[in-house]
Amino acid sequence: MDEHTAHMRRALDAARLGPEADPNPRVGCVVTDASGVVVGVGHHRGAGTPHAEVDALRAAGAAARGGTAHVTLEPCDHTGRTGPCTEALLDAGVAAVRYAVADPGPGAGGALRLRDAGVDVGPGPLEEEAAELNRTWLAAVRTGRPFVTWKCATTLDGRSAAADGSSRWVTGPRARADVHALRARVGAVLVGSGTALADDPALTVRDADGRVAGRQPLRVVLGTRALPTGSRLLDDAAETLHLAHRDPHAALAAVRGRGVHHVLLEGGPTLAAAFLDAGLVDEVVAYVAPALLGAGAGVVGDLGIVRIDDALRLDTTDVAVLDGDVRIKATPRPSAPRS
Amino acid sequence: MDEHTAHMRRALDAARLGPEADPNPRVGCVVTDASGVVVGVGHHRGAGTPHAEVDALRAAGAAARGGTAHVTLEPCDHTGRTGPCTEALLDAGVAAVRYAVADPGPGAGGALRLRDAGVDVGPGPLEEEAAELNRTWLAAVRTGRPFVTWKCATTLDGRSAAADGSSRWVTGPRARADVHALRARVGAVLVGSGTALADDPALTVRDADGRVAGRQPLRVVLGTRALPTGSRLLDDAAETLHLAHRDPHAALAAVRGRGVHHVLLEGGPTLAAAFLDAGLVDEVVAYVAPALLGAGAGVVGDLGIVRIDDALRLDTTDVAVLDGDVRIKATPRPSAPRS
Repeated sequence: MDEHTAHMRRALDAARLGPEADPNPRVGCVVTDASGVVVGVGHHRGAGTPHAEVDALRAAGAAARGGTAHVTLEPCDHTGRTGPCTEALLDAGVAAVRYAVADPGPGAGGALRLRDAGVDVGPGPLEEEAAELNRTWLAAVRTGRPFVTWKCATTLDGRSAAADGSSRWVTGPRARADVHALRARVGAVLVGSGTALADDPALTVRDADGRVAGRQPLRVVLGTRALPTGSRLLDDAAETLHLAHRDPHAALAAVRGRGVHHVLLEGGPTLAAAFLDAGLVDEVVAYVAPALLGAGAGVVGDLGIVRIDDALRLDTTDVAVLDGDVRIKATPRPSAPRS
Repeated sequence: MDEHTAHMRRALDAARLGPEADPNPRVGCVVTDASGVVVGVGHHRGAGTPHAEVDALRAAGAAARGGTAHVTLEPCDHTGRTGPCTEALLDAGVAAVRYAVADPGPGAGGALRLRDAGVDVGPGPLEEEAAELNRTWLAAVRTGRPFVTWKCATTLDGRSAAADGSSRWVTGPRARADVHALRARVGAVLVGSGTALADDPALTVRDADGRVAGRQPLRVVLGTRALPTGSRLLDDAAETLHLAHRDPHAALAAVRGRGVHHVLLEGGPTLAAAFLDAGLVDEVVAYVAPALLGAGAGVVGDLGIVRIDDALRLDTTDVAVLDGDVRIKATPRPSAPRS
């Protein structure tokens, strides 16, 4: 492993210490002095805290002058809740910057800004690994809409509820805990008003004992039907946004406008069909419970598919067994939007 | 590992060389001479060939006299296509017999017969492993009806066919090859006449190139509707039994009467529901394809289940990924028959 790769690997390791939660990417930074000795390692600890570059430069102090910064993501050049990282790098007097993955956003320009200021800037190693680390954030910045994960829980015969509509505990405790871990990573959770009325879900991140966690994703309800007073979605455990329409594109634009990069679509079948039909599902996380019902609602409504050849095909990316329940992650094959 | 265990392990290894195909169990035998030296190792090579004991005794010859036979299954005491193994062991003059697992059949009596003849007979080590080796055969002998494996292929949303009824290639080539390997192990394949008429399945064991394999399971069609001339099930690739009823109990009795210990139930949804409802499914092998249809037939018909609490629960025993398709093996939890 060459020196650049070694430093970038360490920066990636540092990045992983940060929280995997919307809205910010996980970033790590390793600063070496002019002679190539590591003098500062830093990472980003979540929205409102210093960026990785600033964190590493603080540790490095004056030793950063004439040195190199290895950053897992192209440094930002904009002022958000913290100042631009380009400024911090220039103030510290680093001579060179290597970044593993470029910022794909339209407003990106950190590399250019640094180059204009005379810094030796260039892409570094481990791009693929760095991209994987922030795959949903990068996709959202690239497409301009949140990355959408559709989560469903189903029996082996594809039922999400029994004939009488009851649906609690299709899957076991480990699968449910996994859903809460998934919620903890996203910026918003989406349901249709039909599901909201039928199930009265809380859609909060809770621990194994049912305690509500600190940070909560935005809860979003789509549809014109009003939620009755006393609905859990109207409690103060988390913020809830009620959009009086069922347009997937408009819904994603609205939550993106609130700084959300990753949306978890939690149901029901009609809403799932609308998002799938519009080509707006980037990833499916299906929890398949070893149970049979023989009747009851399916996980997805009519997609207008008549022939088996027109099935919406996905690529399986990960399979795990959680106490008997099978979690299947899959990605829809790229194709033109279906509507 | 003590001496008995070492010999039984070697007998188990030998047993695994035999074909895993109905109707005969896989059995291995290790014969030692009077001083404890291994003088013969044998295994059963399929219906009509010598049993493992005879195979090992032939290799041992006169050296077996005064020695011990380690057999993975209690020796048989009946005359089938070959003579009873008890006779062969007595003729060879072995002084002792150890067997890993007892024959649970009502007609078993090999151990008793040998004991009566003065042989030192007793259960040996590795019972669990030996039982697992012939789990379906032992279950069939114990219950008096064939072990039933229900196989289904479904999309992620539980569809076995599209809205127009088309169902070919829900799963990929590896999953389909796995189904053929499963068929190659069973004694009979069962379908309802509805499926037979709608899909015109061949239900034969074929290799990757579509060539029909040598040994074929009995094809069984349940239901009163006649198969039209030219149906694949009426070709001479394998024998077909058409039972003009849909009674799961009677169907299993009929195929058991033909020497079948393991039945593969291949569909459709109505037949699957009838077997599940009668508590006659011992194992489920579900191939879940990463695809969505949104509409179309389910894998199982109405089970009379209304509430989620009454779901037919299973225990997942194995999960494998076959080129993106997910194979889930599961066993229905023991409960009183549902009807």
